[in-house]
Amino acid sequence: MVSEINAYRGSTLIKVFYAVLLTALLSMPQAFAGECLTRGTGDLGMIVERAIGSVKIVDTSAHKELFQVKGLGDLSHASAVFSRDARYAFVFGRDGGLSKVDMLCGTLVNRVVQAGNSIGGAISQDGRLVAVSNYKPGGVKVFDVDTLKLVADIPAGTSIKNASKTVGLVDAPDQKFVFSLYDTGEIWIADMTTPTSPVITKFTNVGRQPYDGLITPDGRHYIAGLFGEDGMAMLDLWQRKPSVTRILNNYGRGNRKLPVYKMPHLEGWAVAGNHAFMPAVGHHRVLVVDTNTWEEVTQIPVHSQPVFVVARPDGRYVWVNFAHPDNDTIQVIDTLTHKIVHTMKPGKGVLHMEFSPRGEQVWMSVRDEDEVHIYDTRTFKKLSTLEVDKPSGIFFTSRAHKTGL
Amino acid sequence: MVSEINAYRGSTLIKVFYAVLLTALLSMPQAFAGECLTRGTGDLGMIVERAIGSVKIVDTSAHKELFQVKGLGDLSHASAVFSRDARYAFVFGRDGGLSKVDMLCGTLVNRVVQAGNSIGGAISQDGRLVAVSNYKPGGVKVFDVDTLKLVADIPAGTSIKNASKTVGLVDAPDQKFVFSLYDTGEIWIADMTTPTSPVITKFTNVGRQPYDGLITPDGRHYIAGLFGEDGMAMLDLWQRKPSVTRILNNYGRGNRKLPVYKMPHLEGWAVAGNHAFMPAVGHHRVLVVDTNTWEEVTQIPVHSQPVFVVARPDGRYVWVNFAHPDNDTIQVIDTLTHKIVHTMKPGKGVLHMEFSPRGEQVWMSVRDEDEVHIYDTRTFKKLSTLEVDKPSGIFFTSRAHKTGL
Repeated sequence: MVSEINAYRGSTLIKVFYAVLLTALLSMPQAFAGECLTRGTGDLGMIVERAIGSVKIVDTSAHKELFQVKGLGDLSHASAVFSRDARYAFVFGRDGGLSKVDMLCGTLVNRVVQAGNSIGGAISQDGRLVAVSNYKPGGVKVFDVDTLKLVADIPAGTSIKNASKTVGLVDAPDQKFVFSLYDTGEIWIADMTTPTSPVITKFTNVGRQPYDGLITPDGRHYIAGLFGEDGMAMLDLWQRKPSVTRILNNYGRGNRKLPVYKMPHLEGWAVAGNHAFMPAVGHHRVLVVDTNTWEEVTQIPVHSQPVFVVARPDGRYVWVNFAHPDNDTIQVIDTLTHKIVHTMKPGKGVLHMEFSPRGEQVWMSVRDEDEVHIYDTRTFKKLSTLEVDKPSGIFFTSRAHKTGL
Repeated sequence: MVSEINAYRGSTLIKVFYAVLLTALLSMPQAFAGECLTRGTGDLGMIVERAIGSVKIVDTSAHKELFQVKGLGDLSHASAVFSRDARYAFVFGRDGGLSKVDMLCGTLVNRVVQAGNSIGGAISQDGRLVAVSNYKPGGVKVFDVDTLKLVADIPAGTSIKNASKTVGLVDAPDQKFVFSLYDTGEIWIADMTTPTSPVITKFTNVGRQPYDGLITPDGRHYIAGLFGEDGMAMLDLWQRKPSVTRILNNYGRGNRKLPVYKMPHLEGWAVAGNHAFMPAVGHHRVLVVDTNTWEEVTQIPVHSQPVFVVARPDGRYVWVNFAHPDNDTIQVIDTLTHKIVHTMKPGKGVLHMEFSPRGEQVWMSVRDEDEVHIYDTRTFKKLSTLEVDKPSGIFFTSRAHKTGL
């Protein structure tokens, strides 16, 4: 009788144990799924922590950090693109590392070191291919987004050994990549319709030392900035037989050269109506260019040498940050009047800005403060501050749906 | 002893039962979370099944149906907007129903019947407010996106009783909604900075019977089409003191009027470079308008009365569908040459087209075939066919990040 009671007690205890376990599991579906989140990805973002080789995944609605993902290597000058489902980020490190981050699970899914030194990349129109622009060795490598396996190697020269450094790599409509060859002064179009056999169209003698490139938001005009001369090279991709034309000759690059503290980023340009706003290399000016004629309209004097000149998504204002030692300042320009309507000093080392997709907020990396600030773009009021270790690039998932970003 | 053994057996059975249950639960994390999916939402879409009051949630990468969600009421002429996280769709039914659909779980989260008859809506720049344009009674109602509770009621008249029908409701930068009053010929701007106290700016005598409106992708120009006269009313929201100007007078609406089989949708217009392409009401023509001067450049003769004139996202081509009885046909226009480069007949009742965000695919509702077709926009090759009951509007989540969509 005694043993019967004990046995009964034993089975009750077992039942209670399992019941408690079950209840715990039922109440924690997220933990259950390995910490992955079941949520929309339209309001996710990624911030590069350049000094410690990690990224932070953030919620741009709640202004909160969701995950920190480590082990991405050298992230100085790192950039990122997103998968078409807006779940995965592909991060291009300076050390040639290509990392795939799962933003719903906060994990590093895959990482390949595909070159010795690289400088950004792009994702194809169909979202199936990710391309990386390399310095050492030069050329462009193309990978499958699922596996990060090499699909195509484009040497950008007669062989891999003598391949040029490539810069300004962007995606273009009709499953193309476009990029510039720094060493040889060329622009190449790679049609990736058959991924393993890119069809290359080459434009030579476009100008000396193209150092960066951009494509207009409509995917029509590819423009390469030239470090070696005064002007830019432009390709109209809409023409049946595209050719390179020189624009903005003598805009000032070669005229009373100032020391260039930091090369401006052409990807950070801005289009507002028919005007494009671009940093004038080495000058304390923002260039305004008519996008119908590609001629200079005016130059707007600003605080220092501009680095990023970025339009609020509606194009009503452009926001400008500056090179060292003036990188504590931001200026906001009215695109109708060309007047500076606001100057602010968020702190030392303002490296990058990213607008929310519909423009109501701007996120700003303030490196030397280890902070990312979030501002209301209408009132300039600071809404939130996030602690981030030496933040640099900020990238929101809405880029997944845009050409050239 | 016998009873001891039985007791032992009982507890073993209990343990086995719980262990099996646990294993089953552990192996089905998705079922466990109530069938909700853990996945990115950047490549989701929603297709309206107009006749049976349901919507289908689709994966635009896999070309597959994920869920069917029922019980949304009268969905003739239904449209949708998306939450800023791209997880929820807000569907505007013809019967005044406002439905909130969870696209990750395939569920109808909430539904309010907020008027007797309504005609579309918009979501605010910050993603917190959803507004509905009503016919019976007239006016605009504004709801909280989380709860669908009424936040503000804008009667569009001196009282709710005599409120005008409202049309062409769009979101605009700086947390605004803009809409037109059909009965009184007005355009109103509602600044929703304080959601419970909209600040209204009214423009009167804009023209007779505005029947639809659109806002340019940069949020600068709001344009109302006029049913009662020959021309359109335009508001430049970038000016400090905006005023309404009349554009495109005598473009043909009043000149040798044809019977109008279906009012064209102005939201389906297209901007390519400096040219806007719009349906000419009642004519077999597409209007081309210079967006600098807002003057007519030319008219392109097309197959029949255009309904939607939609640009591929890069603006290189515009795709046009037509009113009954010619709604079996699609034409594609080259925006540089203004030539028709392709004509196709997908089937009877082509009601709507939606491009993938970067333009490589177009999805097309072919109502009378109960099919949605997916085409490659470069080759015009049909890639896939989905079975959908009387499909009409198709909406992809990338709209969450765009002004005026």
